[in-house]
Amino acid sequence: MNIHYDARLDGELPRQDKAAVLDDLQQSAPGLTLLHREEDLRPFECDGLSAYRILPMLVALPDDLDQVKILLERCRALGVPVVTRGAGTGLSGGALPLEQGVLLVMSRFDRILALDPEARTARVQPGVRNLAISEAAAPFGLYYAPDPSSQIACSIGGNVAENAGGVHCLKYGLTVHNVLRVELLTLEGERLVLGGEALDAPGFDLLALINGSEGMLGVVTEITVKLLPQPETAKVLMASFDDVEQAGRAVGDIIAAGIVPGGLEMMDNLAIRAAEDFIHAGYPVEAAAILLCELDGVEADVDEDCARARRVMEAAGATEVRQARDEAERALFWAGRKNAFPAVGRMSPDYYCMDGTIPRRALPAVLSTIAALAEEYGLQVANVFHAGDGNMHPLILFDANREGELERAEALGGRILEACVEAGGSITGEHGVGREKINQMCVQFRPDELATFHAVKAAFDPEGLLNPGKNIPTLARCAEFGAMHVHGGKLPHPDLPRF
Amino acid sequence: MNIHYDARLDGELPRQDKAAVLDDLQQSAPGLTLLHREEDLRPFECDGLSAYRILPMLVALPDDLDQVKILLERCRALGVPVVTRGAGTGLSGGALPLEQGVLLVMSRFDRILALDPEARTARVQPGVRNLAISEAAAPFGLYYAPDPSSQIACSIGGNVAENAGGVHCLKYGLTVHNVLRVELLTLEGERLVLGGEALDAPGFDLLALINGSEGMLGVVTEITVKLLPQPETAKVLMASFDDVEQAGRAVGDIIAAGIVPGGLEMMDNLAIRAAEDFIHAGYPVEAAAILLCELDGVEADVDEDCARARRVMEAAGATEVRQARDEAERALFWAGRKNAFPAVGRMSPDYYCMDGTIPRRALPAVLSTIAALAEEYGLQVANVFHAGDGNMHPLILFDANREGELERAEALGGRILEACVEAGGSITGEHGVGREKINQMCVQFRPDELATFHAVKAAFDPEGLLNPGKNIPTLARCAEFGAMHVHGGKLPHPDLPRF
Repeated sequence: MNIHYDARLDGELPRQDKAAVLDDLQQSAPGLTLLHREEDLRPFECDGLSAYRILPMLVALPDDLDQVKILLERCRALGVPVVTRGAGTGLSGGALPLEQGVLLVMSRFDRILALDPEARTARVQPGVRNLAISEAAAPFGLYYAPDPSSQIACSIGGNVAENAGGVHCLKYGLTVHNVLRVELLTLEGERLVLGGEALDAPGFDLLALINGSEGMLGVVTEITVKLLPQPETAKVLMASFDDVEQAGRAVGDIIAAGIVPGGLEMMDNLAIRAAEDFIHAGYPVEAAAILLCELDGVEADVDEDCARARRVMEAAGATEVRQARDEAERALFWAGRKNAFPAVGRMSPDYYCMDGTIPRRALPAVLSTIAALAEEYGLQVANVFHAGDGNMHPLILFDANREGELERAEALGGRILEACVEAGGSITGEHGVGREKINQMCVQFRPDELATFHAVKAAFDPEGLLNPGKNIPTLARCAEFGAMHVHGGKLPHPDLPRF
Repeated sequence: MNIHYDARLDGELPRQDKAAVLDDLQQSAPGLTLLHREEDLRPFECDGLSAYRILPMLVALPDDLDQVKILLERCRALGVPVVTRGAGTGLSGGALPLEQGVLLVMSRFDRILALDPEARTARVQPGVRNLAISEAAAPFGLYYAPDPSSQIACSIGGNVAENAGGVHCLKYGLTVHNVLRVELLTLEGERLVLGGEALDAPGFDLLALINGSEGMLGVVTEITVKLLPQPETAKVLMASFDDVEQAGRAVGDIIAAGIVPGGLEMMDNLAIRAAEDFIHAGYPVEAAAILLCELDGVEADVDEDCARARRVMEAAGATEVRQARDEAERALFWAGRKNAFPAVGRMSPDYYCMDGTIPRRALPAVLSTIAALAEEYGLQVANVFHAGDGNMHPLILFDANREGELERAEALGGRILEACVEAGGSITGEHGVGREKINQMCVQFRPDELATFHAVKAAFDPEGLLNPGKNIPTLARCAEFGAMHVHGGKLPHPDLPRF
């Protein structure tokens, strides 16, 4: 492998002469907004993962591409690392600043450049909010499908950086499945146009590579997304279960029946009670688990699928299946789910949100494992998640003011992610690796694979100045972490048909 | 950019001492089947693009992974290039051998390792035939969706290498959308496991990168594909048009109406007549163009979509719309389409098949351009193509025995691909770049983008020994070709809504 850069973490980065860097940037890009006083830097010290806070050396807020280009050129010349950030709503610390680096904030690139209803595409700048795209497309009966819970605030550039998901990924895919083209500036000032409107693009698939790359390969300056026709109708079923594992099995049964829900979400009792207490959504507070199953499409199909999904869930042991009577009740059912994180937040001084993904068939077993681990660590875990695509969000409740609880919560979180990897899954479904899960990458990947990631990183950024210390751990770090690599080539079921 | 290898074409590769290489490989891997006599090498001199023929120095037919590993290790030590090949059905010369290289044939890796009906996945070796996967999945009511015309013969490893498509890509995606996981050996002997069953994978999306990489990054040794439930029913409509451009517009109208056909194919008069003469499919030989529109899914939906698609095509000017009466007639309608290439082959001593892809809205305009170019070059062009996803296959008819016709055909082909790029499209939709379209890559991409491709290649294969001279042209080659770069950041329609 061909690696020529150093993936150091912040503490190990060389010290910068802040005054000299500021002076250089002010001289080189006279119009560029640069923040440098502590009180101006403070609002940028974290992203959505507020447990991690670092004051950046400088914040740059460019207005145009020339300023971005000059900034990158000068940072490269000076050897100053650059962390790019959008709205800062990410949940894994991917946009966590560096004490010795510049935070490049792309929020002023907020224009929708073109919307083509016939081709069903929107060409936008990276600072455009996710929901703003759907709002602009609404008059044409179109929308942008990926819908992270933060969609009112998060920007599309950040969605690309983290390959964001949402409630509707099961049916409509992650960000990578909905982005047709990006323009990128590399640290060396190269402008890359990747992808296009054609289904296939020749050469290597660098477009997919950019999605989820957490700002480590370049700065995304323009994005063309796919738009979809708004479904004619959407209906939601809420099924109650006495047993969490039964609910887990019902998820697999729905998919096995050939039903593709727009969303298929699960909440366990702790999450149900928290949400009900907060939102009064009409959830059954005695249930061990509920499933929310939304079907969307043409009216007749949706009605038929609702009837089938109801039968499947009843057969799987649902004690009650209720269909939202109207649009208002549907919105209420979803409000409970969408506010589950803050609702749980009301129950506990602190919580720690996981983002593991597992094959659907492993849901019942991994839910049991999580319950057993929670007991072992003496902590409560609320489960709220995108069950349909196996993307779990266990919320570990703890109180950081109690001696040792934070450490116990972190250790429990690590064990849960390792259980996901062991079940053939992954340590992240939609929140990204960022700074938070960098140790678990040592569990997910072998040294060969990590070396390949570093080599690809070096192909774009040989000096390693773009967002160092995120996403891909160094092999030294993994050795230090004492990586227990559990990612095997094992067959999931030894009793499956063989050939 | 960080490039440390040399993307030379075959003529420029260093001469090898064949006897010494053979001896080394025989000593290092005693059980490995090695072919070296001219008569044994002859069958491997070309892939499906038979116009390009080169006798490889040696052919290796390994039986197991250890042999592959040793072969790669030794070739690397000796500086011998390696071209990996599956069934050799590719249409762009991606598996064209090198006179100074080893051809690594993976056909003995032909086992289906596991099939999981619940997770809907199949884990297979790279030499498994595309159709064999669907045959193995059929007892479970499942199938593998991408269906290149060569599916009876082509192998899944080759499908991954070229990111193969087929009639059903419009609805079900290309190979990259249907592969969940690959295992790869790099030239340095690293074993990489990329992707998995979870929807998202952390780190960079190297799985997507491997799809379409034409054997330049590593040797794929195992593939896990997604299986889909067989549709309950499929029905096909055949619509006749007096005018090719009207047919082109009807394609856009169908998609705009929110109908997603399983397949949406177009043939022009020359192709219709050739196919009818060969297959007797009942095609209207007087029509300027036909559309074949297949709808698949649940019976009631399919009937409703058929009725809607019929109305849309009639409104677009179809003179007749016929629905296949039964399964036999449906098969016959498709037989005409699937045999269109050999049918055209019966009309002309030689033909040259293009594979450009364009945005659907550009179909009428590009079809006119092709007609005008055909006249300019004095050659006939038959159009047969995946209209729904804008993937065109103009077949240029010529006679290589007539002075200058081959050159004229090649020049016309180049002009057609350039017209595709100008329309916002791409030089390949599903056949790959290979050796054939390497010059057109200079038209599709800027030097910055090509340099990035080379840097990524170097990250996996610093010595540039895996399939050199395919897929990605050197910048020197582009300069020599006199690249006319037409890939612009232009808005397709200046009159689209702006924001």
